[in-house]
Amino acid sequence: MNVEVVTIGDELLLGFTVDTNAAHLARELAAAGIGVARRATVGDEPAQVAAAVMEALDRTGAVITTGGLGPTSDDLTKPSIAALFGRAMKFDEAIWEELKIRWKSYRWPGGIPESNKQQAMIPEGAVILKNRHGSAPGIWLEDERSPMPRWVAMLPGVPREMRGMLADELLPRLRALTTGTPNVIVSRTLRTIGIGESALADLLGPLAKGPKGLPLAYLPSVEGTDLRLTSRNASAADAAHALDAGAAELRAVLGAYVYAEDKTDLAAVVLGLLRSRGLKLAVAESCTGGMLGARITAIAGSSDVMLGGVIAYAEEVKESQLGVSAGTLRGYGAVSEETAREMAAGVCARFGAEVGVGITGIAGPGGGTPEKPVGTVCLAVSSGGAVRSTKVQMIGDRDEIRRRSAQAALNMVRRALSETS
Amino acid sequence: MNVEVVTIGDELLLGFTVDTNAAHLARELAAAGIGVARRATVGDEPAQVAAAVMEALDRTGAVITTGGLGPTSDDLTKPSIAALFGRAMKFDEAIWEELKIRWKSYRWPGGIPESNKQQAMIPEGAVILKNRHGSAPGIWLEDERSPMPRWVAMLPGVPREMRGMLADELLPRLRALTTGTPNVIVSRTLRTIGIGESALADLLGPLAKGPKGLPLAYLPSVEGTDLRLTSRNASAADAAHALDAGAAELRAVLGAYVYAEDKTDLAAVVLGLLRSRGLKLAVAESCTGGMLGARITAIAGSSDVMLGGVIAYAEEVKESQLGVSAGTLRGYGAVSEETAREMAAGVCARFGAEVGVGITGIAGPGGGTPEKPVGTVCLAVSSGGAVRSTKVQMIGDRDEIRRRSAQAALNMVRRALSETS
Repeated sequence: MNVEVVTIGDELLLGFTVDTNAAHLARELAAAGIGVARRATVGDEPAQVAAAVMEALDRTGAVITTGGLGPTSDDLTKPSIAALFGRAMKFDEAIWEELKIRWKSYRWPGGIPESNKQQAMIPEGAVILKNRHGSAPGIWLEDERSPMPRWVAMLPGVPREMRGMLADELLPRLRALTTGTPNVIVSRTLRTIGIGESALADLLGPLAKGPKGLPLAYLPSVEGTDLRLTSRNASAADAAHALDAGAAELRAVLGAYVYAEDKTDLAAVVLGLLRSRGLKLAVAESCTGGMLGARITAIAGSSDVMLGGVIAYAEEVKESQLGVSAGTLRGYGAVSEETAREMAAGVCARFGAEVGVGITGIAGPGGGTPEKPVGTVCLAVSSGGAVRSTKVQMIGDRDEIRRRSAQAALNMVRRALSETS
Repeated sequence: MNVEVVTIGDELLLGFTVDTNAAHLARELAAAGIGVARRATVGDEPAQVAAAVMEALDRTGAVITTGGLGPTSDDLTKPSIAALFGRAMKFDEAIWEELKIRWKSYRWPGGIPESNKQQAMIPEGAVILKNRHGSAPGIWLEDERSPMPRWVAMLPGVPREMRGMLADELLPRLRALTTGTPNVIVSRTLRTIGIGESALADLLGPLAKGPKGLPLAYLPSVEGTDLRLTSRNASAADAAHALDAGAAELRAVLGAYVYAEDKTDLAAVVLGLLRSRGLKLAVAESCTGGMLGARITAIAGSSDVMLGGVIAYAEEVKESQLGVSAGTLRGYGAVSEETAREMAAGVCARFGAEVGVGITGIAGPGGGTPEKPVGTVCLAVSSGGAVRSTKVQMIGDRDEIRRRSAQAALNMVRRALSETS
């Protein structure tokens, strides 16, 4: 089964909002064996919405829309698509009652705003898709006159609401529709770090286009290069088997360049290594300003390993809170391997951690010199009484330099722990 | 002038990558007076690419593609589109020489990989768009046989490369094409915090659909609700004038709910308030784990205000590094207004800052209790010798709760500074 996705909103078309819904929808649909044949984005214009949905229906017969169901002036998806199916709009008392109850719980003075009445208007003959996370209900509209399946599912544009409705309401409905068509699309990603896209292709040689006939995609980012294998198969078990075999061939060539599979974050890998050894971690961050700590603590359950850290943005904080010596700061500068080493050792000593990280660098856009240009970053890891350090030249803008720095620091911890295991 | 955008890649269609290029392209084009009439996303299939580009050419005559120009097996954009224009592919020696020079600077052992030769293949009659940030050149292909303008611009998929090529090569070319068609689309965003989407619409009353006939879009996120006004006008000056007048009407109703315009981050607003008063800032973060520090230091030039902070993730760190009393932790718990207050006051004292922030909460998914459910967050701001605090219930998942907490803490600093000014 294939569907097309139409995402609706001037904010998407004008680029003020990045379309994360489309990506989430595609992943969830693929896992249910449903392919996305094409995606389109149109603005908040009834004629545009109608044209895009009609073309998609003519090609594929199955369309999911996001957006344009909210309580404000952007509303237009329901009437535009109702007109395509020759349906009138009617006011639904039951939805209105539910909205009123929901608003009571908000304790908003004056009760539910009148502008929300629009949310209780639905096309005749529509099935309501409940919204547990917000007030705008979704709509399932089917063309019974058509000899072929022909339907549109309308989901809200707010990501949390869209995700909940997809999981609770739409996917069960689609699974029921697709029973008997066991075409499964499954992917597996090998995450690499420390090697670029072309060099990976060369290292892989005859495997570069994919092992065992499975297509291989190269996805570079500030976190490294991900390699994604995709299998289309009759059953989930066959697909998993093909991916196992393909991933094993790639791993045999790539060795320690691979740090994880699928969406696993390098921070989670590092937390796992520390946890298995019973070690506690603390971080000392200058140019990353807390980003490494935020990465690590983004992972639920990190508190059994992560003690915390010091954001030593100002030079005096490196001295007073981490014990970096004034001589080191004067002699080598705040951005130096020597300072990074004292930051890592200092945060270990003050926090009682076995493993400490130090990061200091020039994220730019200002502050560079000929000797230490923007992107110069010094990293250190203190572990088992030894401190190792390195100086690297990062590329990219301020945000990329900071993100690459946090990722490189995590990789240093991974390597230090692997070597001493 | 209108264009259509076709973004290419299985990783986009399958949802493994979020399409940030499309949003960036749209914003930059709008600022140059060029509208995006529609956007489509197709997978790495030559037939899909050809079909989507052909349909877009038939509708609009002007198409920008991203993706499928890389050195690996995903390459397919150039030959698919060359075939539409009846052009053969040829090997370009000059591009190959430039690629070889670029690879020398990488100092990669063995020199340029042979797999990069594909990047030197270009359609006959194509104009090369230079890539300062990567190795894949872009392509401009024009159909001289057509009586109407009919062209495709092919940009790389890697965001940094796409952005550079758009600014350096494509926008100057499009500006030259559009001379004499002064239809400008400009937007302005008022960023609000502390009030929801429907409540904003009700508060605005007759202005809810937009002041002075300018369409108004409501864009809720974890940072608050942005209100975007859009003006289409004959000249940039007329558009700016219309936006000035519209924004002034909205501001008169919304007052202090508005914290900034356009893309200005709340952290930048807070830094500006602190800077103008000559005050230094330090942060003490528990559940946000460094995220607030990262937000603040993401802004270039923050070092004249931001001293740093303590990531006090473990309870003992709150005591040892911030001086939170054992009695407070035992009596009220780590997640309490009392603890948040001592964190804010403690980080001020230890860092020598005039303004300090304390954040402690339960980001989940575990750790909630009936008295303190997941999403319970206590915030405190120490400023001018006084400490104010609050306890809030945040909605969303772990990441949303953390992001809302950092944003709410920044807003507390903004309000504390505004009230004492």
